[in-house]
Amino acid sequence: MRAKLRETGLDGFIIPRADEHLGEYVPESAERLAFCTGFTGSAGLAIVLLDQAAVFSDGRYTLQLETETDAALWERLHITENPPETWLKAHAAGQKIGYDPWLLSADALDRFTGVKLMAVASNPVDEIWADRPAPPMAPAVPRVLALAGEDSAAKRTRIATILAEAGQDAAVLTDPASLAWLFNVRGTDVGFTPIALGFAILNADASATIFMAGAKLPPETRAHLGNEVSTAERAALPAALAALAGKTVRYDPASMPVWFKTTLEAAGAKISEGVDPVALPRACKNEAEQAGARAAHLRDGVAMTRFLCWLAEAAPGGGETEVSAGEKLLAFRAMGENFRGESFPAISGAGEHGAIIHYRVSEESNRAIKPDEVYLIDSGAQYLDGTTDITRTVWTGPGPAPAAVKEHVTRVLAGHIALATAVFPEGVAGPHLDAFARNALWQAGLDYDHGTGHGVGAYLSVHEGPAGISRAAKTVALKPGMILSNEPGYYLPGAYGIRLENLLLVQNAVFPASKRKFLCFETLTLAPFDRALIEPALLTPAALEWLNAYHKRVLAALGPLLEAPVLAWLQAATAPI
Amino acid sequence: MRAKLRETGLDGFIIPRADEHLGEYVPESAERLAFCTGFTGSAGLAIVLLDQAAVFSDGRYTLQLETETDAALWERLHITENPPETWLKAHAAGQKIGYDPWLLSADALDRFTGVKLMAVASNPVDEIWADRPAPPMAPAVPRVLALAGEDSAAKRTRIATILAEAGQDAAVLTDPASLAWLFNVRGTDVGFTPIALGFAILNADASATIFMAGAKLPPETRAHLGNEVSTAERAALPAALAALAGKTVRYDPASMPVWFKTTLEAAGAKISEGVDPVALPRACKNEAEQAGARAAHLRDGVAMTRFLCWLAEAAPGGGETEVSAGEKLLAFRAMGENFRGESFPAISGAGEHGAIIHYRVSEESNRAIKPDEVYLIDSGAQYLDGTTDITRTVWTGPGPAPAAVKEHVTRVLAGHIALATAVFPEGVAGPHLDAFARNALWQAGLDYDHGTGHGVGAYLSVHEGPAGISRAAKTVALKPGMILSNEPGYYLPGAYGIRLENLLLVQNAVFPASKRKFLCFETLTLAPFDRALIEPALLTPAALEWLNAYHKRVLAALGPLLEAPVLAWLQAATAPI
Repeated sequence: MRAKLRETGLDGFIIPRADEHLGEYVPESAERLAFCTGFTGSAGLAIVLLDQAAVFSDGRYTLQLETETDAALWERLHITENPPETWLKAHAAGQKIGYDPWLLSADALDRFTGVKLMAVASNPVDEIWADRPAPPMAPAVPRVLALAGEDSAAKRTRIATILAEAGQDAAVLTDPASLAWLFNVRGTDVGFTPIALGFAILNADASATIFMAGAKLPPETRAHLGNEVSTAERAALPAALAALAGKTVRYDPASMPVWFKTTLEAAGAKISEGVDPVALPRACKNEAEQAGARAAHLRDGVAMTRFLCWLAEAAPGGGETEVSAGEKLLAFRAMGENFRGESFPAISGAGEHGAIIHYRVSEESNRAIKPDEVYLIDSGAQYLDGTTDITRTVWTGPGPAPAAVKEHVTRVLAGHIALATAVFPEGVAGPHLDAFARNALWQAGLDYDHGTGHGVGAYLSVHEGPAGISRAAKTVALKPGMILSNEPGYYLPGAYGIRLENLLLVQNAVFPASKRKFLCFETLTLAPFDRALIEPALLTPAALEWLNAYHKRVLAALGPLLEAPVLAWLQAATAPI
Repeated sequence: MRAKLRETGLDGFIIPRADEHLGEYVPESAERLAFCTGFTGSAGLAIVLLDQAAVFSDGRYTLQLETETDAALWERLHITENPPETWLKAHAAGQKIGYDPWLLSADALDRFTGVKLMAVASNPVDEIWADRPAPPMAPAVPRVLALAGEDSAAKRTRIATILAEAGQDAAVLTDPASLAWLFNVRGTDVGFTPIALGFAILNADASATIFMAGAKLPPETRAHLGNEVSTAERAALPAALAALAGKTVRYDPASMPVWFKTTLEAAGAKISEGVDPVALPRACKNEAEQAGARAAHLRDGVAMTRFLCWLAEAAPGGGETEVSAGEKLLAFRAMGENFRGESFPAISGAGEHGAIIHYRVSEESNRAIKPDEVYLIDSGAQYLDGTTDITRTVWTGPGPAPAAVKEHVTRVLAGHIALATAVFPEGVAGPHLDAFARNALWQAGLDYDHGTGHGVGAYLSVHEGPAGISRAAKTVALKPGMILSNEPGYYLPGAYGIRLENLLLVQNAVFPASKRKFLCFETLTLAPFDRALIEPALLTPAALEWLNAYHKRVLAALGPLLEAPVLAWLQAATAPI
């Protein structure tokens, strides 16, 4: 790598964990950070200088970073406490530092100052990566209208109107999930998210061009795209951007590779900054997508209930482990119709492992699920008709749960219910509701160090923008049709972790006497909360009423779909408290 | 005016309702908008072109704007629905439009586009305003250390550290409340806020220069300021800014006149954008200021209780009016030690007038307070040791209040209590807590169209930044010592208005077992809520407990200070529910 840098006259190079779409999951061909450093975490960045190097990640990966990387070669640093830009400025002031303009957003690049930044035409990591995997070539497949609920032409017309109203002639789209929604296609290029990697230019007349390897676009997909959508190889992108000379083009400096910005500017196009115009419409699920989500959650509820029933019998000393439990749940899910895989790597954490918020069990960390402890499982599935994400926290028994644990769980549950039952006027955004989910914990001097909720796609990414429920989330007003998670928690390091997660669907709340428009949440997820961990005296009468009504609904919905022993277990698990 | 414009070659001129400090209350000498248009509201702006003119204000003043201005001369417009910048662009595209750089912030000026903006050296309004009042010349008087709690040298050192850490050599200060706090002086230049108008430059070595007419700085004030604070006439400002050539100077484009920006830039100073560095430290009241606030609220509570007792007897058919009631309260306040005047014009609204959020009774609007209706009074006082702001809503009787009114009041009260009892970790800001105060209303499809809380100064402005409790407020983390109002409401147009307001003091919440730092509120205001308007069945047991405990505290604090008949009334008013 250093020889390659010297060859090209560079004093250093920035290697982010990113592909050209700057998303959460990347194909193996883009795992440059892992290739260079050995670090396989999902977020990080390395900087290689001629005589020193550093690799950065966040608190989730502190241990993994130290285990996977060589201290003799790499300084290992916390990415927010010791930001790469500070390190670079201190160690390479004034030097020529290379970067791949496809792998950094304009905003990310702007944070690096005090050095001479040089975009490379060819990534030097790729040049030394002899056995680099080929980029994925899975086909993009059409999404039927019955599931999409709106055809691509109508969607493109809607987004084109947004562009026209903003005085923009075109928008570049770099998020494959935006392509997936806009053109009603899905793919299997990366894990967990059913997307086909590609780029697009959408014009203000609703026509569009998709830039994707021809091999990924079989005839039926081309036919599905229609006449107003042309396709081209990615190599055609520079010429297509050059053709936008004199045009006003929407571009998001926060989420899109800086390559687009520099190429558009060089071509003489006028950049109009704006977020991905697809993000907000995509987040507001239509009736068909809402119906799909409900159907998927019914199946997911059946799988979760079978799993929880199995766990109740197997867990207390049955020799099961974090890994085997996760596999069992996956097997139950795989029995469901339309199952396409997990929506993210499951978090299966027993006892103290539950307190590690982003715990991912490995062969080394795997341990038995023991009697009389807290077990947390956070998992989700991709079904053709919807994406799920659920967390349950259970007491393995057979003894009773300690009062302190029950108090913690019940405070988390009280927050979960407060958010689930929130009613709020139009204009309210996630940051304004986040405290509802924390209030019961705050009153006891407790809190959790993660957001309360993230957006969830319709057979798309389980982490979807633009809305979220946390103080750090953007103040994007919640709109009917948005799906968001409701997942307050509490973590006692070294002891146990608690998280109670359902997905919420934003709905109109009807007050006939009110002139204002109000919204509320419909809870999509269907699975019981563990009664063994609930202290009813700590819930208000209204909260207890919600819990009993929810359990009644779970039983009514899932009961007819369950075999007798599981049904019997669920009847007991959902009996009124 | 138009002759004057033609003389100077201008096609139009912008006249904001502002003085050179861009604050809420302005001296008579700066009431240029009123002089030109006749409109005396507290917020507005006019644009005079050679052949047409428009005057803008907000929803509070729609009626007043139409009454006070001449439709033949002025187009009267809503300032947010028909923004002046849109009107100007449409009516004067490309024309030369003059503005007074002392009366617009850089941000406000930036909003005007599509015309040729020309700063004037001398305001043409002043040139035609023959009987323009002289600027106020009241002396700036020292604030004793016992009330300020920290001497100016210590304050200046603290702020200078902020500048030094930001790499700034100096800061310009244009908010007289910042001067008042930083130099421990107060004045009487404008109504309601005890400030002396002036500017200052604070240097990173903690030395400073105050720019204020020499006549306003008597010898004892100069002595109080000390050797490290020099004073100069305002005419010396340009030279003082010129002396900052090559220096980095902190300037806030949102709150400071653009004149400072252009003058600093012309002088060769480097502008470093940043909010007024005094704002946040000023908002965090020290122990002495907190003690002063408590003492002031005790006196204010005595006055309010005497008033409420008087009202209970006088109101049901006693011939009292909105004006006479307001005067009565003022008289009760004036009996208190250290009283210096009202902190804002009182809102005294009976029945349907209470639904006008910013109602200000006039001779024309004044009406009798009738039996069996809702009466709202929102008022505050300036005491030498603290600033108060309180709203109470009462039922005039003698009959019982209708159930619907009681439900509305109780929902407002539930929100008030939810905020008063909030506990939250460090880092939480007003926008994250606002929903607590609205939740009980939202659950019934109701809301109010104003913020929940604003900052309040220590014998300073009753509307003080930087923190506030509303969705629109800045996300400035709440800090111990901040004083904020807690004033949810509900308004039924044409019928009645409800608002229940106490002031809150942010305090540390102590959880011995928690490693996190938590905050909570101490309620400063002491006066009973009207029991006749409370429906106990609509409050949770915890809320009812808070109410009874609060009333018990009000009685214990005020009882010893009240004469027998008022004490008897308060005993009944605060008896447990």
